[in-house]
Amino acid sequence: MAISDTSRDAASRQAAIAALTEAFGHNRVVTAQAVREQHGNTVTWLPNEPPDAVVFPQSTEEVQQIVRICAQHKMPIVAFGTGSSLEGHINAPAGGVSLDFRDMNKVLAVHAEDLDCVIEPGITRKALNEHLRDSGLFFPIDPGADASLGGMAATRASGTNAVRYGTMKDNVLALKVVLANGEVIDTARRAKKTSAGYDLTRLMVGSEGTLGLITQLTLKLSGIPEAISGGICPFPSVEACCNTAIATIQSGIPIARIELLDALQVRACNLHAKLGLPEVPMLFLEFHGTEASVAEQSERFGEIAAEFGGGPFSWTTRAEDRTKLWEARHHAALSNFALRPGAQMVATDVCVPISRLAECVTETQADIAASRIMAPIVGHIGDGNFHLTLLVDMSDADEVKRAKALSERLVERALAMDGTCTGEHGVGQGKIKYLEAEHGPAALAVMASIKRALDPENILNPGKILAL
Amino acid sequence: MAISDTSRDAASRQAAIAALTEAFGHNRVVTAQAVREQHGNTVTWLPNEPPDAVVFPQSTEEVQQIVRICAQHKMPIVAFGTGSSLEGHINAPAGGVSLDFRDMNKVLAVHAEDLDCVIEPGITRKALNEHLRDSGLFFPIDPGADASLGGMAATRASGTNAVRYGTMKDNVLALKVVLANGEVIDTARRAKKTSAGYDLTRLMVGSEGTLGLITQLTLKLSGIPEAISGGICPFPSVEACCNTAIATIQSGIPIARIELLDALQVRACNLHAKLGLPEVPMLFLEFHGTEASVAEQSERFGEIAAEFGGGPFSWTTRAEDRTKLWEARHHAALSNFALRPGAQMVATDVCVPISRLAECVTETQADIAASRIMAPIVGHIGDGNFHLTLLVDMSDADEVKRAKALSERLVERALAMDGTCTGEHGVGQGKIKYLEAEHGPAALAVMASIKRALDPENILNPGKILAL
Repeated sequence: MAISDTSRDAASRQAAIAALTEAFGHNRVVTAQAVREQHGNTVTWLPNEPPDAVVFPQSTEEVQQIVRICAQHKMPIVAFGTGSSLEGHINAPAGGVSLDFRDMNKVLAVHAEDLDCVIEPGITRKALNEHLRDSGLFFPIDPGADASLGGMAATRASGTNAVRYGTMKDNVLALKVVLANGEVIDTARRAKKTSAGYDLTRLMVGSEGTLGLITQLTLKLSGIPEAISGGICPFPSVEACCNTAIATIQSGIPIARIELLDALQVRACNLHAKLGLPEVPMLFLEFHGTEASVAEQSERFGEIAAEFGGGPFSWTTRAEDRTKLWEARHHAALSNFALRPGAQMVATDVCVPISRLAECVTETQADIAASRIMAPIVGHIGDGNFHLTLLVDMSDADEVKRAKALSERLVERALAMDGTCTGEHGVGQGKIKYLEAEHGPAALAVMASIKRALDPENILNPGKILAL
Repeated sequence: MAISDTSRDAASRQAAIAALTEAFGHNRVVTAQAVREQHGNTVTWLPNEPPDAVVFPQSTEEVQQIVRICAQHKMPIVAFGTGSSLEGHINAPAGGVSLDFRDMNKVLAVHAEDLDCVIEPGITRKALNEHLRDSGLFFPIDPGADASLGGMAATRASGTNAVRYGTMKDNVLALKVVLANGEVIDTARRAKKTSAGYDLTRLMVGSEGTLGLITQLTLKLSGIPEAISGGICPFPSVEACCNTAIATIQSGIPIARIELLDALQVRACNLHAKLGLPEVPMLFLEFHGTEASVAEQSERFGEIAAEFGGGPFSWTTRAEDRTKLWEARHHAALSNFALRPGAQMVATDVCVPISRLAECVTETQADIAASRIMAPIVGHIGDGNFHLTLLVDMSDADEVKRAKALSERLVERALAMDGTCTGEHGVGQGKIKYLEAEHGPAALAVMASIKRALDPENILNPGKILAL
């Protein structure tokens, strides 16, 4: 949908931009086409839908001021972190302003005794961890991309070590949020737990900027482990990988990371970085704890893997050797370029109960073969979450069609197995069509009623999550 | 407020009871005064406000039928589990029916590979763990009382091992909920994580039956640890206890339980069970893991405690010896009767950032002394959550007044320290008055708008959480 197709009134939008420019100046209200297009960037096959302008606030008060101006003109507002989202979250299908939190990137406080910190939403996870390094603490959620923390909260991100540390829902203690009416709320105090009313924190986490704009986050931190062991383990089949993961978790080993690469993904890594790994399904593991406990965990894991025909399990606690062992995992995303140069990469993201994971991955591999699509698989296997990277020649209409159909069947397969259409990427525009199948009409109506209660004019990221 | 004072129409309520009786019979729609009063029971100084009738549903469909009948007559509905809530959650200030989930107490499925189970809301945590015993799994949340799981979810309960396993918000994967309009929703699938839209699970957890009625829960389970070590450790001061807890958590020891008893609470336990413990502040610890790791954790804890002047730390991995060491903690609740026979016990419940805990407890102890109230303290110290048990002679008006004032100051003190008015007991009726101070008017307005969106006629547990 191009901007001109929307029902939003063009004159109102120009008036909003004029008012914003008067308040913040041309340096902070940018309408240059390149900047606008960059803010509607998507890493999918969704078309670019740029906002009318990009605004760069510097404080919660400025965000309030922007929201009030936009509300007055019914101007859509799309929150923007680093633009690494994968389902069109930052597109502006109804036009409006992209609210770029680039300049709100400060660490406001680190409370080492409480294992928490207070930050602005624009700081990235790597910058935060850099800041925290000397405190002995770290923020564990790692979605791969160096995303902004505000964006990670908004999409309920997780990634490789969610199996141990949880997702953003488990690691956000409180949020400061500017509402659609311009008022600001704090969703919770800094206490570690509370039963004082509705959980507005968790309501905002994962709401993708449709219920409010996050202007401050209080995050739970973890102690940097005294020791880390890491390693890799080949397996005869994806099923053996899954069964090993289940047995490992059931045995109580507090595994920090357990990542699956299928044979094709390993092949891509070999091609890309000349690693010479056996091209079979592999697990990449990481254990956190004391020297003694990571050694014990690693040894036990090796025994469990052997029971399922896996191994040998190579592991080490030395940082440089760990990095070397994990090289393939680190290269996974980029390596896919080597597998099919020139192809567009499109990510998928489903999550099923772990007992169904082997079946889901195996059926999907057969479907990939039958669809004649190149699609290596990586999985956060401890959570039952996996991704295909579809490598698609976008100039081949038939291939695009087959890839899209494969992607649809993947979601349907996950839903049929009591899974979800998105484990961690979020809904954005790309997954809206699956929500009714996943949640049913009554639950979707509840979501819509909450959206209408909090944003009656639908100015906050319209056209995302819900088709309102 | 007596029933006759409410604005709800008495004739409508009688019509609702007649319709319910026609549908379910006199055995399942009970109006006997004793049964009604038992269902409005409170363990606080709130007056008993019995419902007009008690209904015993046996299925989700029956709950839907009840809600539809009640909605037609604008009849309030109060969900009831075991009646162990502490802030008047089950009172019926506007009359209505108490919906007692006693007969919906089945375990519907245990998915051992996925570490989850599906249950009805009326089953208690002890009954569930009894059922799970042979599976090697357990449900870790332990609020003390043998509460129903539905009630625990509704109040966002936690308790002694939340420091390791989290609260109900972290251990509920999905809920089946009957809405105020009689429709039923599933808040999520059984996948371990999802980013598919608003987090209705966490919205319902802690909503105290004001947004919907929980008729089924999918709970996350944990593996029964291979080894458990437990022990007790005396300290020179509450501050030393708190500093030890902070250092223990910061050091990354994955402690399972760390409970504070102040000197008066230890004295109560001695009086009650002739334990002969030194009457000083004490920590009660539990560690979960492998034989080697619980030994390592216990030894490290002992070293940390010694740094803060605590010890000796007596610990053991033998179950019977652990039980003996933990005897005082197990006796804590009952022992208070021994401290002041005939007094009424009134629980309090605040939670502050752990860095402020020593200050909060110490100031509170001074306030207790100045108030001339007997009030031993237990604390889930790893979370910054503690309780006074006010032992009050209810026939002494001046003492009641002093106890209530002490209790109010406790909440104000916690709020001033970035804490919450309730760490785990919930709002019910008792904490409503503090929510504006805790959340601010804008956040409270958001909660109210969600309540109105989901329950426009205010039939679900009216007069709880929000003063609507």
